[in-house]
Amino acid sequence: MLDIQQATEIVLARTRSFGEEQRPLYECRGRVLRQDIRADRDFPPFTQVRMDGIAIQWAAYEAGQRVYPVEATQAAGSPQLQLKDPNACLEVMTGAVLPAGTDTVIRYEDVELADGQAVIQEGAKVKSRQNAHLQGLDRKEGTLIVQSGAVLSSAEIGVAATVGLPELTVAKMPTAVIVSTGDELVEVHESPALHQIRTSNSHTIQMALARWGVQADRLHIDDELEATKAALGRCIESYDVILLSGGVSKGKYDYVPAALEALGVQKHFHKVKQRPGKPFWFGDVEGQCTVFALPGNPVSSFMCTHRYVRPWLRKSLGLDPMGYAYAALAEDFTFQRDLTYFLQVRTQHDAESGRLMAQPVKGKGSGDLANLVDADAFLELPRGRDHFASGEVFPLIFYRAPLR
Amino acid sequence: MLDIQQATEIVLARTRSFGEEQRPLYECRGRVLRQDIRADRDFPPFTQVRMDGIAIQWAAYEAGQRVYPVEATQAAGSPQLQLKDPNACLEVMTGAVLPAGTDTVIRYEDVELADGQAVIQEGAKVKSRQNAHLQGLDRKEGTLIVQSGAVLSSAEIGVAATVGLPELTVAKMPTAVIVSTGDELVEVHESPALHQIRTSNSHTIQMALARWGVQADRLHIDDELEATKAALGRCIESYDVILLSGGVSKGKYDYVPAALEALGVQKHFHKVKQRPGKPFWFGDVEGQCTVFALPGNPVSSFMCTHRYVRPWLRKSLGLDPMGYAYAALAEDFTFQRDLTYFLQVRTQHDAESGRLMAQPVKGKGSGDLANLVDADAFLELPRGRDHFASGEVFPLIFYRAPLR
Repeated sequence: MLDIQQATEIVLARTRSFGEEQRPLYECRGRVLRQDIRADRDFPPFTQVRMDGIAIQWAAYEAGQRVYPVEATQAAGSPQLQLKDPNACLEVMTGAVLPAGTDTVIRYEDVELADGQAVIQEGAKVKSRQNAHLQGLDRKEGTLIVQSGAVLSSAEIGVAATVGLPELTVAKMPTAVIVSTGDELVEVHESPALHQIRTSNSHTIQMALARWGVQADRLHIDDELEATKAALGRCIESYDVILLSGGVSKGKYDYVPAALEALGVQKHFHKVKQRPGKPFWFGDVEGQCTVFALPGNPVSSFMCTHRYVRPWLRKSLGLDPMGYAYAALAEDFTFQRDLTYFLQVRTQHDAESGRLMAQPVKGKGSGDLANLVDADAFLELPRGRDHFASGEVFPLIFYRAPLR
Repeated sequence: MLDIQQATEIVLARTRSFGEEQRPLYECRGRVLRQDIRADRDFPPFTQVRMDGIAIQWAAYEAGQRVYPVEATQAAGSPQLQLKDPNACLEVMTGAVLPAGTDTVIRYEDVELADGQAVIQEGAKVKSRQNAHLQGLDRKEGTLIVQSGAVLSSAEIGVAATVGLPELTVAKMPTAVIVSTGDELVEVHESPALHQIRTSNSHTIQMALARWGVQADRLHIDDELEATKAALGRCIESYDVILLSGGVSKGKYDYVPAALEALGVQKHFHKVKQRPGKPFWFGDVEGQCTVFALPGNPVSSFMCTHRYVRPWLRKSLGLDPMGYAYAALAEDFTFQRDLTYFLQVRTQHDAESGRLMAQPVKGKGSGDLANLVDADAFLELPRGRDHFASGEVFPLIFYRAPLR
């Protein structure tokens, strides 16, 4: 049986690019950029007025002049005006081009305007070149602002808008399908018989993938070998990745392993030294389709999706695969099996120390989906030891936004 | 001028509910639940087989019996079978109902099956009631699983699916419009003249709101009083919240304050003792429309959206308004003005201590949108002091996912 490091290594050796595509700007949030974004002009593109007031020549002020005839008004969005008389001024608006022949802006609060004249108030503090933001001061034309490979947040989208990119080239996301098996499962809108339960794993996994930007389809397959083969064959043709939930244990009606083998899917491992999620199966048709056969228990499949599928996705997109946070155990914890233990925890930032504290949440085991509701992350406790002390720090895998 | 605590108090006193609505389950991720989710049956709804193998009566095993004739197979998704002979067994599949008359499941790995008989292997460890998950052990029928007011993540959506809720009642999000002003602005697909720049704030803010689940429209208004009044009047009628970017300073063509006053919007404050974002204006038409008039500078408007609009939204939805994280300064920092300073930082979890460390990112001031790209959060440094020491912990406002 593999340990989690070996399993992770195998999964991460099987990543691949899904290509790139052009998307409208407003659809790019959360996507991975596949082009550089450079300044198309200087930022700001002209020396920009940053206060409403008057623009003068500093030399005149320095020479003692405090009263300036107003020649005209330089509005934002208007072509640049020219100061004709070096001892006069122009009214100027925030965002406007600084008029030619001026270099210093005095805000309205320090000026009295009357009869076409601006009188600078006693006690006004005026410095050379104040309130004028020099052309190119923030960024020079051609400067790299956002590098290919960045995850696009609202900040990067704003930059793209400024430099005139209504579309961006981004990494394509994989096409994905979540396949549930098990004849005991019925759909959410159905009334289960006494021996049936409603499907939940495929919904949970679908929503986890949606959070990472993957729009996955859902499919249910009956426990029958030929039907399983036919359906999985179609999935291998149509999808970059298949997430199976259940059907890979030793049951008489677990046709998934046989079907996958018959379809040429190469098995890379079954079973990992971890709890939950020990009976986790991974394989692929190289370069075509990756298959994660997740354990059927809700907590197990959820954990494996976060601990293996997400890093596989992130590395495929060119990101740091694990992207761990780190948190300190808030109380002692004991686990006596030689397995990596993914402890369900509820996290909180300590306002005194800035530490992220992880409080264990007691559950009923890996079958207890409802238990996920009370926690927000898994803390990854290494194998090879039994006791984990309060205050010790371990890698953390969030499964919801840290602030809910 | 108000300090940030006063400004926050006023903004949070002006929140209101936007009602509730029914949404299909797959659209509910990130929404705030407005109903309780209870177990519609016991969880599990029947005593459930948790291993593929055989089911027996413990009493027979305890009496020393190791060879059991196989009566039949209990498949998952089939009605419950009955063990006829207490000294026989049934094959059972994971997920199946535990057959009546049996109480203990022995996995295939510990059994040899041949000629219609199951022989329990030497050295197999068998305990009473093993691998049978008792009906109702996880949750009893009627138990509250997710309480009204919760933010719905993939975990809660899975629970809702299990208990048969294809739709959920969730808090309605506000209708919102982002209004840009300033005749110097052109759209992203346009080629700006020398004195023009492309609009970016409204895109940045739109994407920030989208992250919080608010689908906002965008609107540009020319710098003209009647047009401003007419357009804002329509917005007040049509939207729960208006976010203005620019147009509220002292410029001759800043018609927004006059237009808002004429339209009956009550001003609650202008200006806050903070940097960036000092000229921040807030008002409302009580019970109808809330107006945030954000400063025109990109970093200022972005910061104010995160520091004021988001808490307003969260409180309106019934969540903890501030939802701060906390981080430790990674180096000394000095700021000598009597203003709360929102320092742009790049954060990282320290794997040794579990502390979130905030590294200041040097920028070119509040006009420098590109600077947001290099950081991921604002660290809120209190006013009334100049020096902030490395290691000191302050509230943190993330503006992108902590792990990118």
